[in-house]
Amino acid sequence: MRRIDINCDLGEGFGIYRAAPDEHIFPLITSANIACGFHAGDPQTMRRCVELAVRHGVGIGAHPGTPDLAGFGRRAMELSDAELEAALIYQVGALEGMCRAAGTQIRHVKPHGWLYNAAATDARLAALIARTIQKLSPKWKLFGLAGSESISAAQAIGLPHVSEAFIDRAYEADGSLSHRSVAGSVITNPESAAQQCLAIVLQSSVKSVSGGEIHITAETLCVHGDNPNVLGILECVRERLAAHQIQVRPLD
Amino acid sequence: MRRIDINCDLGEGFGIYRAAPDEHIFPLITSANIACGFHAGDPQTMRRCVELAVRHGVGIGAHPGTPDLAGFGRRAMELSDAELEAALIYQVGALEGMCRAAGTQIRHVKPHGWLYNAAATDARLAALIARTIQKLSPKWKLFGLAGSESISAAQAIGLPHVSEAFIDRAYEADGSLSHRSVAGSVITNPESAAQQCLAIVLQSSVKSVSGGEIHITAETLCVHGDNPNVLGILECVRERLAAHQIQVRPLD
Amino acid sequence: MRRIDINCDLGEGFGIYRAAPDEHIFPLITSANIACGFHAGDPQTMRRCVELAVRHGVGIGAHPGTPDLAGFGRRAMELSDAELEAALIYQVGALEGMCRAAGTQIRHVKPHGWLYNAAATDARLAALIARTIQKLSPKWKLFGLAGSESISAAQAIGLPHVSEAFIDRAYEADGSLSHRSVAGSVITNPESAAQQCLAIVLQSSVKSVSGGEIHITAETLCVHGDNPNVLGILECVRERLAAHQIQVRPLD
Amino acid sequence: MRRIDINCDLGEGFGIYRAAPDEHIFPLITSANIACGFHAGDPQTMRRCVELAVRHGVGIGAHPGTPDLAGFGRRAMELSDAELEAALIYQVGALEGMCRAAGTQIRHVKPHGWLYNAAATDARLAALIARTIQKLSPKWKLFGLAGSESISAAQAIGLPHVSEAFIDRAYEADGSLSHRSVAGSVITNPESAAQQCLAIVLQSSVKSVSGGEIHITAETLCVHGDNPNVLGILECVRERLAAHQIQVRPLD
Repeated sequence: MRRIDINCDLGEGFGIYRAAPDEHIFPLITSANIACGFHAGDPQTMRRCVELAVRHGVGIGAHPGTPDLAGFGRRAMELSDAELEAALIYQVGALEGMCRAAGTQIRHVKPHGWLYNAAATDARLAALIARTIQKLSPKWKLFGLAGSESISAAQAIGLPHVSEAFIDRAYEADGSLSHRSVAGSVITNPESAAQQCLAIVLQSSVKSVSGGEIHITAETLCVHGDNPNVLGILECVRERLAAHQIQVRPLD
Repeated sequence: MRRIDINCDLGEGFGIYRAAPDEHIFPLITSANIACGFHAGDPQTMRRCVELAVRHGVGIGAHPGTPDLAGFGRRAMELSDAELEAALIYQVGALEGMCRAAGTQIRHVKPHGWLYNAAATDARLAALIARTIQKLSPKWKLFGLAGSESISAAQAIGLPHVSEAFIDRAYEADGSLSHRSVAGSVITNPESAAQQCLAIVLQSSVKSVSGGEIHITAETLCVHGDNPNVLGILECVRERLAAHQIQVRPLD
Repeated sequence: MRRIDINCDLGEGFGIYRAAPDEHIFPLITSANIACGFHAGDPQTMRRCVELAVRHGVGIGAHPGTPDLAGFGRRAMELSDAELEAALIYQVGALEGMCRAAGTQIRHVKPHGWLYNAAATDARLAALIARTIQKLSPKWKLFGLAGSESISAAQAIGLPHVSEAFIDRAYEADGSLSHRSVAGSVITNPESAAQQCLAIVLQSSVKSVSGGEIHITAETLCVHGDNPNVLGILECVRERLAAHQIQVRPLD
Repeated sequence: MRRIDINCDLGEGFGIYRAAPDEHIFPLITSANIACGFHAGDPQTMRRCVELAVRHGVGIGAHPGTPDLAGFGRRAMELSDAELEAALIYQVGALEGMCRAAGTQIRHVKPHGWLYNAAATDARLAALIARTIQKLSPKWKLFGLAGSESISAAQAIGLPHVSEAFIDRAYEADGSLSHRSVAGSVITNPESAAQQCLAIVLQSSVKSVSGGEIHITAETLCVHGDNPNVLGILECVRERLAAHQIQVRPLD
């Protein structure tokens, strides 16, 4: 029987602010990427997310970003290697502390926003991220864009890695994600998202915005927590996957 | 042969700012309380401090504070139990991440500023702090004001604890520290600090601002990193301790 | 013909976060209290709010808070007089800059959250706030809880002041607002809010949680932007006021 | 008699941190660029600087930066036009509030760090900055690198502008400042700074790091507050200027 992991970026609020209906998303996913306080997230939100993950048997991942609360970690920002390494260790360590206090542990790390996108094409940045995670634990898995430099960098040093595809984002012909500023870049229609999901899982293929087919092999599928229709998409996607006998199951 | 531990709050800068000549202090102390990014500190500074601690054989402690960079964690601030617990776990976890990346680990935790002072007299707050540290690791030692509620709270739950005395701060008759706003509350003269140090180590006693003697049994002595004369004090203190055959040695 | 001003706290988002549907609220109110970046708000949000206020003929007020983004300015926090004064001037000045760039100006100032509530009963704090506003402009009006120390402090120094009542918050018998942690303290039912509104405007009276009547004379009525039903309440309230020939009009 | 203005970036501390001995610098300069809270600075520091400026007859300038306290505003950062405009208005408005409360007003604006350097060569950014300042006041002067796009942009729209040269920074052959990461880029020797100062004032010329002469016409000279030898440089420079009958005087 085929199987797939579904992940979501969660805990991306701050103080009184919420970016997603976290407590309703947890029952529908198998991996959670939890914001660590730099681009979003705060200690209480992180702790609540870890507890929800434990309760729902969801794999816990760190979702570190740049020190950019005002820009939600989506903007380009000059960071020295030393600053970036230290920022990653700090954030991942903080989440591991939350896991420790809850009697569990981190399973994966997925960089956020600009960091994720930049590492997909910048081999030097990708290598730095992979090395930093390995220093913390050689067993943690790196989530990276399928076919990107992030995955190659993890492979190169023997760090466990998981290829990711997106079911609520449009793809460019070169396999990168359409920029958020482009109309249609975020897919909010559950049917369209479910269709993209099935194409990826069954045919290892996704249709790009220019019409061509892109080959993608993915072990985990991402839906964004701040997608305005996140719950509708997740329900529709799970229904379709079930109808095709594809099991939604956490990574080992 | 008698022995004593000397600790110092370090890494209390932020970005380009420095609060103390950290690199010159490390060779003179045996325990470092490293700021964790809330009242002061940033990831790069934390990392550098951990590396300096390893190089100089200094015991590493977390020095978590309130989310109050503007007030250096010295002001009273209303925090719910849940917020405080999560803030402590976050900060200590972040430092443990730095230790992990450097192949070492945390030995102790010492709350900062207002949190430290409030926990000295507030039994409920002291219990919350002790419980939170124990959740993270039952082996980490809590540093607390000798004779305070912090020490009692740790004792009550079987958390390792270390009684602390200050050699660069004046004491009130009730054993609390004179408030920083009071003239003379911070001792900057090396001779005076050394004298207070010897009185504590040899006679378990310190003279209060009102003239009387206070009984204090301490296993670690604190000098503040932001004391304008921190290096002069540390050098003088170590000389006097050596002259009295008292060994300055990390805690076991 | 009777008249009343309706005000709302707006611009209380930060970065990607929103606390209220600002653009839908502006057409329904006559005074806006715009967050200034400390408890909430950021430069772009402030600017957009000023532009919306100009477009809809809404009076512009500064809504300064404590430096507490994590706690939304609702927690008690120790602030020296000098720190509080400077924080008020900074925030109000920043909003006046936004007004200047848009060819308009500030009409009033309403402190936020803990600051507002503390000043209602603390005469010394109230005096400090009134004096600070007067230093910036002797013509700006202070919004304060009807019958509170805030209003007395403004009166005492000849600063224009506007007595405020709340139509979406429950009142205690002593005329203070029920604490947000108490169930029912925030009124979300439009009918109940409209009823409280009419009682205040027509009978200068409001029913407290303990059942008694409190006498309140108010020139402006507040609905909270982050009330989950803010639009429903505003529409209902305006309908009822119109039915009673009460004009909703900005203060002179 | 010849005359020159000497300016310095001040108020660049935050909370307990100080970047420069502000109170000793004010008597030695004629224009102060006061940090506005984004790259550095906080309300109390700003207020104290405004009061010192008034006491010493120093012209007050706003010194706005990017929202980057961690990087001291020195790093490249992606900012939309709308975000940058709003950030400038916010910061300059906040300082104007401080001036208003002290009965004085802003005379000039000098962008900080990366913003200053980027605007020197990026005509679009320079135009945006000039337009934004003009919206706030058509009388405020823009301080910009002599011969740079910043000055051209101000000229193009009729905004008053002041050409600036640096006496404690090395110049590249193209007239730009040597990057801070280059050894020798910051001049700390008072004699060398004084020599560079005299060359600029008397010969409108400065020697670049590659040995050639660059032509510079400047109306104001900058010394950095965080130069480790700022006081020594200022004293030496003033002595030499006096010896050459050059008056140090505020801009009109």
